[in-house]
Amino acid sequence: MPTVNRQILLVSRPTGEPGVDNFRLVEAPLGTLKDREVLVRNHFLSLDPYMRGRMSEARSYAEPQPLGQVMLGATVGEVLESRHPFFRPGDKVMGMGGWQEYSAINADQRGALQKADATRLPLSAYLGAVGMPGVAAWYGLVRIIAPKAGETVVVSSAAGLVGTVVGQLAKARGCRVVGIAGGPEKCRAVVEELGFDACVDYRRYPDLASMSRALEAACPTGIDGYFENVGGMLLDAVLLCANNFARIALCGMIAGYNGEPAPVTQLQLMLTKRMKAEGFIVIEQVQVWPEALQELGAMVAAGKLKYHETITQGIANAPRAFLDMLQGRRHGKHLVKF
Amino acid sequence: MPTVNRQILLVSRPTGEPGVDNFRLVEAPLGTLKDREVLVRNHFLSLDPYMRGRMSEARSYAEPQPLGQVMLGATVGEVLESRHPFFRPGDKVMGMGGWQEYSAINADQRGALQKADATRLPLSAYLGAVGMPGVAAWYGLVRIIAPKAGETVVVSSAAGLVGTVVGQLAKARGCRVVGIAGGPEKCRAVVEELGFDACVDYRRYPDLASMSRALEAACPTGIDGYFENVGGMLLDAVLLCANNFARIALCGMIAGYNGEPAPVTQLQLMLTKRMKAEGFIVIEQVQVWPEALQELGAMVAAGKLKYHETITQGIANAPRAFLDMLQGRRHGKHLVKF
Repeated sequence: MPTVNRQILLVSRPTGEPGVDNFRLVEAPLGTLKDREVLVRNHFLSLDPYMRGRMSEARSYAEPQPLGQVMLGATVGEVLESRHPFFRPGDKVMGMGGWQEYSAINADQRGALQKADATRLPLSAYLGAVGMPGVAAWYGLVRIIAPKAGETVVVSSAAGLVGTVVGQLAKARGCRVVGIAGGPEKCRAVVEELGFDACVDYRRYPDLASMSRALEAACPTGIDGYFENVGGMLLDAVLLCANNFARIALCGMIAGYNGEPAPVTQLQLMLTKRMKAEGFIVIEQVQVWPEALQELGAMVAAGKLKYHETITQGIANAPRAFLDMLQGRRHGKHLVKF
Repeated sequence: MPTVNRQILLVSRPTGEPGVDNFRLVEAPLGTLKDREVLVRNHFLSLDPYMRGRMSEARSYAEPQPLGQVMLGATVGEVLESRHPFFRPGDKVMGMGGWQEYSAINADQRGALQKADATRLPLSAYLGAVGMPGVAAWYGLVRIIAPKAGETVVVSSAAGLVGTVVGQLAKARGCRVVGIAGGPEKCRAVVEELGFDACVDYRRYPDLASMSRALEAACPTGIDGYFENVGGMLLDAVLLCANNFARIALCGMIAGYNGEPAPVTQLQLMLTKRMKAEGFIVIEQVQVWPEALQELGAMVAAGKLKYHETITQGIANAPRAFLDMLQGRRHGKHLVKF
């Protein structure tokens, strides 16, 4: 049994853009397991944009990440030792293990630890397309946008995992799907590898007028649904190109995560076009998880839902990988492999 | 029978704020009635913020008002002459008579002309609390905000007719009701005469920080529903004070009517607070009119729905009265009496 655990703590809060010095790698002794606890060797840590929000003190839907403690995060791994009757050594599990190599988890906490079927799906999929990001994509698309065949659905951060899943779910429903992503490589991948109908490279269109013209060209019949992962100017461009009665699912608005406001100037179009916008937090929509995971798992198992994984090796590199993700330097699902 | 009709035409489009020189008073001969037409002497013309939108060329939910033609507008009046079997001289009617003393209306056009029961309600009510503005208030409050007893509902332009009705409908449903209005006189009237629980004078709070603090003080348990008639900074202040799962009905966003953008900077709160916003055009929601008019008419007839009317005498004064309304110089329902 291991005796030392390597962990990443949050040691300071960012002012403006976060940096590696907001984090610290420490070694902590691994104690003995308490009754009802399970010791898990974490294999993959999920890096997600919501973590940026928790680094700040600002009130949000979740408590801020406490300073001096292990960064929170979703993990998949393998049970090494168990003092809980439901889990046995060798079981593959997912849970909120945090940014650390080992986690001792009280398995009686509701939802703290769940078994993963690693024979049907790759273990990492449970952190992505068949996990929280996949269900977020499913909920925003199916329950808020509720697209009909023939409608046009646009998704920002199209090369990110959520955008990837949104687009393929919308294609499966007979929609025209247009992504928005940064850089020609991501745009090419979204169209050629994932089957989007088009992808607009927002880096080529730095102002609202040119961005909305590009979007209009990619959406000849207008926009009926928008899955928002970014906010700010992209939202304005979509509002300009939207059809009457368009629906917007607000899943992420990273343009404002670093504290600087991301103003939206075209909001009056929501009125004149009778649009609807709704924010959601997927962990609250527990009622849809079974239905969503069933569709997502079946699609992944059948090879009908493709996604890209950006995997960083070693816990020491987790902060840098996280910052790269926020900068949009990689695409697909961001994972750290311990 | 009259032979001369005085009319107000739109003769130019505003650049920035509209002025009286965008309009022209003309005298036109009254021709003879065609078959199926009804000649109406208009008694009251309704002045409404949506007319500002139609003065511009910009694409909106309605066609722009054509230049050189009589300004569109809702009217109530009395039938003078009829070549339609359903209408007789002396009938009180409402319709889209426009900014003119007499209208010859083809009564076969669907919804062009309707009889009004002037024995039960004052004729002018059909342009206000028991007309389009009343139904707009009802739809946004009852169908979009859908407040529960004990929740807090905020409405901007609270002293305007729509705001007036929103607040009283919400009070009748057991809500705490807080208005936003400009100036101490309007705020006093809203609380003392209409029974709102509080009213915030936005003119005292020129910046977002002070406005949101004032709103927070008036809404000690937060905001659950917001009926938006203004947009811009007021919306930001509401977003800051909103509770999780708050609902916003977008009915008017006059902050942007004059072409200058009214940026909104706090939109990411719609995501973190899982809020919903929806724009609507009341004339499209035909299915709710009977239910809404029944409640509104019964409340007015019983003296349980109060409203203020600002009545300007004479068609020549209509443009100035319209501009005054846009400036927020008067409150309640704005009417021109011919």
